[in-house]
Amino acid sequence: MKPQHLVIIGGVASGPTAAAEARRTNPDLHITLIEKGPDVSYSACEMPLMLAGKVQHKDELVRYAPHELATAFNIAVETHTSAEEIDLEHRKLLVRNTKTGKSRLIRYDRLILATGALPIVPEALAISTQDVFVLRTLQDVLHIENRIKAQDVHHAVVIGSGYVGLDAAFALKQRGIRVTVLAPSGVLAKGLGETMQAVALQRITSEGLCVRKERATGLEKARDGKIIAVLTDKGEKIGCDLVLIAVGTSPATELARKAGLKIGVSGGVVVDEQMRTSELGIWACGDCTEQKELIFGVSIAAPLSLNAFRSGRVAGRNAARNAPRNESNPMPRTKAAPPSGRSATLPPIVFAAAIGLGDIEIAHTGWTQEMASKLGKDTVSATITHKTASTFTDHSTICITLIAERKTQRLIGGQIVGGNRSADRINVITALLRKGGTVGDLYDLDYVYSPPLAPSKDPLMVAARSLQKQF
Amino acid sequence: MKPQHLVIIGGVASGPTAAAEARRTNPDLHITLIEKGPDVSYSACEMPLMLAGKVQHKDELVRYAPHELATAFNIAVETHTSAEEIDLEHRKLLVRNTKTGKSRLIRYDRLILATGALPIVPEALAISTQDVFVLRTLQDVLHIENRIKAQDVHHAVVIGSGYVGLDAAFALKQRGIRVTVLAPSGVLAKGLGETMQAVALQRITSEGLCVRKERATGLEKARDGKIIAVLTDKGEKIGCDLVLIAVGTSPATELARKAGLKIGVSGGVVVDEQMRTSELGIWACGDCTEQKELIFGVSIAAPLSLNAFRSGRVAGRNAARNAPRNESNPMPRTKAAPPSGRSATLPPIVFAAAIGLGDIEIAHTGWTQEMASKLGKDTVSATITHKTASTFTDHSTICITLIAERKTQRLIGGQIVGGNRSADRINVITALLRKGGTVGDLYDLDYVYSPPLAPSKDPLMVAARSLQKQF
Repeated sequence: MKPQHLVIIGGVASGPTAAAEARRTNPDLHITLIEKGPDVSYSACEMPLMLAGKVQHKDELVRYAPHELATAFNIAVETHTSAEEIDLEHRKLLVRNTKTGKSRLIRYDRLILATGALPIVPEALAISTQDVFVLRTLQDVLHIENRIKAQDVHHAVVIGSGYVGLDAAFALKQRGIRVTVLAPSGVLAKGLGETMQAVALQRITSEGLCVRKERATGLEKARDGKIIAVLTDKGEKIGCDLVLIAVGTSPATELARKAGLKIGVSGGVVVDEQMRTSELGIWACGDCTEQKELIFGVSIAAPLSLNAFRSGRVAGRNAARNAPRNESNPMPRTKAAPPSGRSATLPPIVFAAAIGLGDIEIAHTGWTQEMASKLGKDTVSATITHKTASTFTDHSTICITLIAERKTQRLIGGQIVGGNRSADRINVITALLRKGGTVGDLYDLDYVYSPPLAPSKDPLMVAARSLQKQF
Repeated sequence: MKPQHLVIIGGVASGPTAAAEARRTNPDLHITLIEKGPDVSYSACEMPLMLAGKVQHKDELVRYAPHELATAFNIAVETHTSAEEIDLEHRKLLVRNTKTGKSRLIRYDRLILATGALPIVPEALAISTQDVFVLRTLQDVLHIENRIKAQDVHHAVVIGSGYVGLDAAFALKQRGIRVTVLAPSGVLAKGLGETMQAVALQRITSEGLCVRKERATGLEKARDGKIIAVLTDKGEKIGCDLVLIAVGTSPATELARKAGLKIGVSGGVVVDEQMRTSELGIWACGDCTEQKELIFGVSIAAPLSLNAFRSGRVAGRNAARNAPRNESNPMPRTKAAPPSGRSATLPPIVFAAAIGLGDIEIAHTGWTQEMASKLGKDTVSATITHKTASTFTDHSTICITLIAERKTQRLIGGQIVGGNRSADRINVITALLRKGGTVGDLYDLDYVYSPPLAPSKDPLMVAARSLQKQF
C-alpha cells in the first residue's frame, strides 16, 4: 500500500516543528516540506543580533540547512517553492518554483499550513528602493546587512515601534548608526498601557534613541533610487539613508482564503484546539493562525515563537497520526497503519512577550486595561516603582502595572519596565493568569529573598498590595 | 477608662511589624515593645553584606533606632530588657534589665511573642573564646567585624553550610580571608535534594571555597584563649584563627514553654491562622512559631524574613483589635473601644528561599523528594541543565530539579542552581505550588522569550517536559 503523503507549507518555525513531530508520530508517512524562500528552520527572533554585530554569519541562526532537515527527519524539503493554490477536491497543491517560475502539481493526503505572517507595508510606503527594508526573513537581514556594509549608513529611520522595530533600532544603534523611530501610537502599544508606555519611552529615549510621535506618510527618493527622506503627517521631512518598515505583521492567509478556509476576526486561519482548519484533512499552525486566548476566550493573532513551536507540534502530531475510525479524520484506518499516538491539543494561550534593549527590560502578559476596556471589561489597575534587589548590591529600578477584574479581583494582565532582572518576573504573573489567580494570590506568594537577588519585599508583592488597595 | 496594654516581646523583625500594625489597627492601645538586645528593627538578612565590606556601618542596616521606632508608632520601646516569665493568671510579665540585672513586673492585657530563633551551638563546640562566633544579631556581626579589624584573620572555619553559613563564608572570602566550610550533611541540605547539592557544591568549590564533609567535634584553644583548631570526626585538626558556628537555629520558646503554651512538633510555638497561641490573649509571630505548610498541611518552622513580616502583621492586627463579644477574645467590648478592623489570617505557607553567592544563584521551593519521601509521599523528579538566555548574548548555565506527586502530577517542589538570572524563576514554580498546579501547567505556561532575557525554550519548560516524560 502506498504511504499517505503529508505536505507542510512553510519552513521557518512551526513548519519544521510540525514535520519533526509528524515523523515521530508516524514513521510510515511520506512527508514533504515546501518553503518559498531559500532558508528553513532558523531563529527569526535572533536576527536583530546579526544587525547588532553579535552574530557573524547567518548560518549561526540556522538550526537545519534544508538538506540537514531532510536527513534529520527523513522528509523531502523543497525550498524556493511557493504554494499557489489548493485543489481541495482532488487534494492537489499547485506550487511554483520561485527561481525558474515553473509550476507543477503535488498530490497530498494531508496538509499543514505553516505560512507564517507577512510584514505590513502601508501603501504610501510601498516604494521600491535599495534603501527601504522590512525585517521578516533571514534574507531580509542579509539585505540590510549588505546595504550597511556596501555604504556607510549615517541615519536610519525605523517606522514602527513594536518588538521588531525596537529590536532593530537598538541593533542599528549598536552598530554606530543614528536612529530615529517613528511611533505615532506609542511604543509597544500592543502590550503596554499608557502609563507604562510613558515609562518605556523615557527609558528608551535616555538610551540614545530618538523617538518621534509622527506617522510616516511617504518616502522621498532620488532619481538614482536612493532614499532621501521619510515624510510625516506633521509635514516634516526626516532625512535618512536607510528605512526599516516595521509597523506590524498580518497572518499570511492568501492561500487559505483562496481555498475557502475559514478566516477569523483577527485575520488568521481559524483552527480548533487540535489545529484543524475548517477543511477536513488540513491543519494549520504558527503565525498564520489565530488562537483562543485563555482569559476572555477571544480569538487573537499571537505571532510568538513559543506559540509557533507549540502549535506546530500539535498540528504535526494530529496530521500524522492514523486516527481510529470513530474519530473525525479523513484518513481511513488500515492494517498497514494502525492508530498511532494520541491526539494533541493546544491549550488556550496567554499573550505574553518580552524584549531586552541594552539595559532596558520590558515585558507584558495578558490584557492591558485599555484593551480589556474595549471588550467591555470593568478593571482596576495599579502601577508601582520599586527596586530589583537590595540597595547594597547591584540593583535597578523596576516599574510594574497590574490589572484585575473589578468584580472578582482576578488578575488579567501585567506589565514590567525596568533594568536588569526585571522582565523575568512576568512569568510569575502569567502562572497566576493561567490558574485564574487573584490579586490576593499574587500578594500571598512566598517570594524568595536574598539581598543580591531580590529586595525583602518583592516588587510583585508591592504591586499586588498597591492593587489590593484599589478595591 | 484606662487603655488596654499590649506588650510585644522581641524587636528585630516580626515584633516591630506587629507593633506598627497594632498601632494602625487601634489608636487607643498602649503598646510596649521590649527587646533584650540594644538594637531593634534591623535587616538581619543583609548582615553578611557588612562582613563582605559592602555595608560600612551597622546603622545602614537599621530601619528604626529604638527612639525612632517609639516615635514612628507612638509606642514605648525598651531595649536591654529580657522577658523572663509570664504570669498568666495575673497577666504580668517578669522582665530583667540585661545591663543592670534588675527585675520588675509589667502588667499586660494582651501579649505578642516575637522572640525569634536562637542559633544552635552543639555542646562540644560551646567553648567561650574571643575567636568563636555565631551570626544571629547585629551585635554578633559587630563582634566578628571587631575581631577581623583588631587582628589579621588568615583562615576562618565556618561550621555549617545552610544559608547563614554560606553567606558568611562568601562574605569572609570577599574580605580576603581563606575559608573552610564544614558540611557533613551537604550544602543547603534543608532545601536541596542530593542531585542539586552536588551541583551546588561543585559551583561553590569552583568559586574558591573549601568545603569538607567532616563534622566538627570540638575546638582546641590556646592558654591565652585564642582558637587554635577545629577538631573533626575524621580525627583532623583544622588550624584556624576564627570560627563561625552556623549549624542552624531553633525557635526561641523558653518563655512560652515555661508559661505552658503549646509547643509544636517542629519546636515552634503553636499558633492558628490568626497567630493565636494556645493561651487566650497571647499571640505569637515570626521565627519562634511554627507555620502550617500549604502542600501537605504539616507544621514547619520557617525562619524566613517574609514570614516574619507577614505573621507579625497578622499578630499585630488581631492582638490590637477590639473584637465583638461573640468572637473569642479576652478583651470585653466597651463603649470607649468599639470593634476595630477585621481579623487577619495568615495563609498556609510554601517554604521557599534563595541565596546569591557571587556568580552562583541557588533557590528552592516546596519539598525535596527526600523530605517528601519521609512523609510517605510517592513522587517523581527530573533534573535538567539548560541556559538562561540566547548563546549570542550574556547567558549562564542553569540546573533545575522538579518534583511532582506520582499519582496526580501535582508539583510539590523545585530547586534551581545556576548563574546570573537563574534564581528568579523559582517564584514561577511557587505560584503554581500555591494554586495546586501540575507539571502540565508548568509546561503549558506562556514563557516570554527575548534572546538577552531567556532562551527560546525556557529552562522551566524544558524541566517540565523532562518531568512529564517520567510519568
